[in-house]
Amino acid sequence: MASAAEAIADIDDGASVGIAGFGLSHRYPSTLISALAEKGTRGLTVYCNGLGQPGFPTGHVLAENHQIAHLVTCFSARPGVVSEAEKQIDAGEMTLEMVPQGTLVERMRAGGAGLAAIYTPTGFGSEIAEGKDIRYFDGRPYVLERAITTDFALIRAQRADHFGNVVFRGGSQNFNVSFAKAARVTIVEAEEIVETGAIAPEDVDLPGVFVTRVVPITVRMDIRNLPKRVNRPPSSAKEYLGKPALTREQIGRRAAALLPDNSVVNLGAGLPVQVANWVRDRPVVLHAENGLLNYGGFATDEELDPDLHDAGGMFVTTRDGTSFFDSVTSFEIARGGRLYAVILGTYQVGANGDLANWSAPGMIGGGIGGAMDLAAGAQHVFTTLEHCDSRGRPKLVERCEFPLTMPNCVDAIITDLALLRRPSRGGRDPGRFTLEEIAAGFTVDEVLSLTGMTVDVADEVRVMQEAWL
Amino acid sequence: MASAAEAIADIDDGASVGIAGFGLSHRYPSTLISALAEKGTRGLTVYCNGLGQPGFPTGHVLAENHQIAHLVTCFSARPGVVSEAEKQIDAGEMTLEMVPQGTLVERMRAGGAGLAAIYTPTGFGSEIAEGKDIRYFDGRPYVLERAITTDFALIRAQRADHFGNVVFRGGSQNFNVSFAKAARVTIVEAEEIVETGAIAPEDVDLPGVFVTRVVPITVRMDIRNLPKRVNRPPSSAKEYLGKPALTREQIGRRAAALLPDNSVVNLGAGLPVQVANWVRDRPVVLHAENGLLNYGGFATDEELDPDLHDAGGMFVTTRDGTSFFDSVTSFEIARGGRLYAVILGTYQVGANGDLANWSAPGMIGGGIGGAMDLAAGAQHVFTTLEHCDSRGRPKLVERCEFPLTMPNCVDAIITDLALLRRPSRGGRDPGRFTLEEIAAGFTVDEVLSLTGMTVDVADEVRVMQEAWL
Repeated sequence: MASAAEAIADIDDGASVGIAGFGLSHRYPSTLISALAEKGTRGLTVYCNGLGQPGFPTGHVLAENHQIAHLVTCFSARPGVVSEAEKQIDAGEMTLEMVPQGTLVERMRAGGAGLAAIYTPTGFGSEIAEGKDIRYFDGRPYVLERAITTDFALIRAQRADHFGNVVFRGGSQNFNVSFAKAARVTIVEAEEIVETGAIAPEDVDLPGVFVTRVVPITVRMDIRNLPKRVNRPPSSAKEYLGKPALTREQIGRRAAALLPDNSVVNLGAGLPVQVANWVRDRPVVLHAENGLLNYGGFATDEELDPDLHDAGGMFVTTRDGTSFFDSVTSFEIARGGRLYAVILGTYQVGANGDLANWSAPGMIGGGIGGAMDLAAGAQHVFTTLEHCDSRGRPKLVERCEFPLTMPNCVDAIITDLALLRRPSRGGRDPGRFTLEEIAAGFTVDEVLSLTGMTVDVADEVRVMQEAWL
Repeated sequence: MASAAEAIADIDDGASVGIAGFGLSHRYPSTLISALAEKGTRGLTVYCNGLGQPGFPTGHVLAENHQIAHLVTCFSARPGVVSEAEKQIDAGEMTLEMVPQGTLVERMRAGGAGLAAIYTPTGFGSEIAEGKDIRYFDGRPYVLERAITTDFALIRAQRADHFGNVVFRGGSQNFNVSFAKAARVTIVEAEEIVETGAIAPEDVDLPGVFVTRVVPITVRMDIRNLPKRVNRPPSSAKEYLGKPALTREQIGRRAAALLPDNSVVNLGAGLPVQVANWVRDRPVVLHAENGLLNYGGFATDEELDPDLHDAGGMFVTTRDGTSFFDSVTSFEIARGGRLYAVILGTYQVGANGDLANWSAPGMIGGGIGGAMDLAAGAQHVFTTLEHCDSRGRPKLVERCEFPLTMPNCVDAIITDLALLRRPSRGGRDPGRFTLEEIAAGFTVDEVLSLTGMTVDVADEVRVMQEAWL
């Protein structure tokens, strides 16, 4: 097919469209999105991980054009940015359905696989499960999630042949594979279009039977124009009671020291990313939701590869033993119990281990990402956070007021003032957290005065900074 | 790990073990199976597509050793062979659960993915669905199938590194990937064990997080000792009323002429394989359940590649546009509606389109294979068969007496005497079959006298042999 305009010509008003791509990366089907914006189709139902980076040829263009009537997404809002989509949702012009990442790709994959529904542990105890069937299997609760099929999928690939066989590059498979399977018409834009036969059978990531049309990429997001997503320099410490607490870097260092060698770990966006600096020279295996396992450290400017980034959008490197796959496989790893730990940032943690990290009062939806799937499946849930919020209120609370990510799941809290732990889940309620360590320069009573949840105090409370010596 | 004996040392009595491998191929984890036979573990629950070729180091060795207490499989019996497993099942020494191929890999994959259950269309209306929850979604019936997890999986691969990353070769992924995901301990035997880093990230078919142990292959099935599975020479025609009907080759030729260019088609084992000879030079895309799409014709002795075979065990070639994947993806294609047609052999077809092709009176279980998944998902279900059985009884019957594969699904019947069709499924009951063509030399009344179902007769009944001229 000659052009993107021809390829999307039959996307009519009211169509459902899956738009693959991941987070704030620059790898979106920008050519097809631009053509769809040009065509001006309205009343679209759009399925996506997120609309992408505002101000670039991502799903945001369609929102700014008022082309989206219903948005099904894992990220509708980020702190500090109010997008055009949020304004339209707030005004009632666009409706919103929030879906956990693993659930979204699994529902898409199920639709493509001819299944009607799945029972997943993800989302139980959160508002995501409200109104859905809950059923217990072997004593554990699962949520019935319906399969999704769409009219169209927009896919970005590295290489495609005329039969429709597709190859992705690096960690860029993400939602592309499952979205392609779910669609009646799958439209692929590719950097290279090659003769059928030029792709070896074992190199095909998406067999041609799932692909309807292939067009060349003509619109690209220039990586140099994106907000730089590189490892932050060590931050200065926040102060409590006039005294410096741990820096963000030191929080990461303390959390890293909790990870045994050979553990498989997922690091959430934000503060948990700091952990990566302290495990890069250790045999700790990092996992990213967009489809990387056992990747290396953060890329320097010289090493930067546009198709190698983690789920938070940080550019990374490969190392011996790295593998690439799509987000369906990535969440198999997560929900299937293969992760030793997930380390998540959070808004609030409850005394009973409740985790609230995806939405806050005043947000239009929020940013679920993979947190609900990761928390549901990982053997351990660690959370790294500042002990109090910017207005000085404790983030460790008796009972979370923010929407829950998952009830009763956290087993370690690492803040800039303290380490608190409790036994990991195993059927029985693990009970209260125990204050095990505090930041140098603080007393137990001082830390407790800044803590909003009831905790036990260890017989011997150690100093956090000594844990990694 | 040094040896297979060490790798399987903790498979204790009563363990559940998934044994990957496909059909009558020679690619089974024979090294690990042999070690397990040597160890003599008893009371095993074994999950497999089938036990493999009797008389070779396949699952049959474990049956012959009386090590299996419960067998969960897609193939428990084949016509003309009575295996040791069948004898033990018949004697009540071993229990049996029959599972459709697509359902088995999907249940395994669901177990590995941390899901509890799925709703699949496969098996509805057959005895496979008996006692299971049935639920209608959008007016269509689905069967609730529980996820499976196992204690162990035995996997055969081409290459593995010390991190556990695995590469399969050709069309040999089949059940390996899903079985590895479902197991608590996955043991891989590989032809080559390489340093971590020697496998490129994009070449990894099964990420190391799913793999627990890797051992070298020391026991192989020699392909030369297997019963030769090559394309049969044209057979002589069967006679009815003293007159020759179509040969098997001609049945295949007639069926092939029903397939439009660029259609994606799955050919069942046995008679449907004949169709392949007539489409190899046409743009018809062949699909095989073990994980090949758009493969070429049958391999000659010179072309024979041990890792390239179709689901019936026939050795095939690749061609421009071929792709390889695992059986999970293969059944996504089937159930997801991507096949224009599946062509299946059958024991009986009912007047209402019922298909009975997996079990017959006197069989211990039967051979479901992928038929239920394929029939549930394909846009068209064609069946090729001899018009009457070896004792002269019509195979086209008013109502099937044999266990159903799927009710009301067949839309074309191609026999050695006739072509009968009816509108394809689409919500409404398509009604009776119409006799459209008959074999040269026969009259309509003669064909009807050999037909056990009520049919309509076309105004103009044509001659089958003229259809491909």
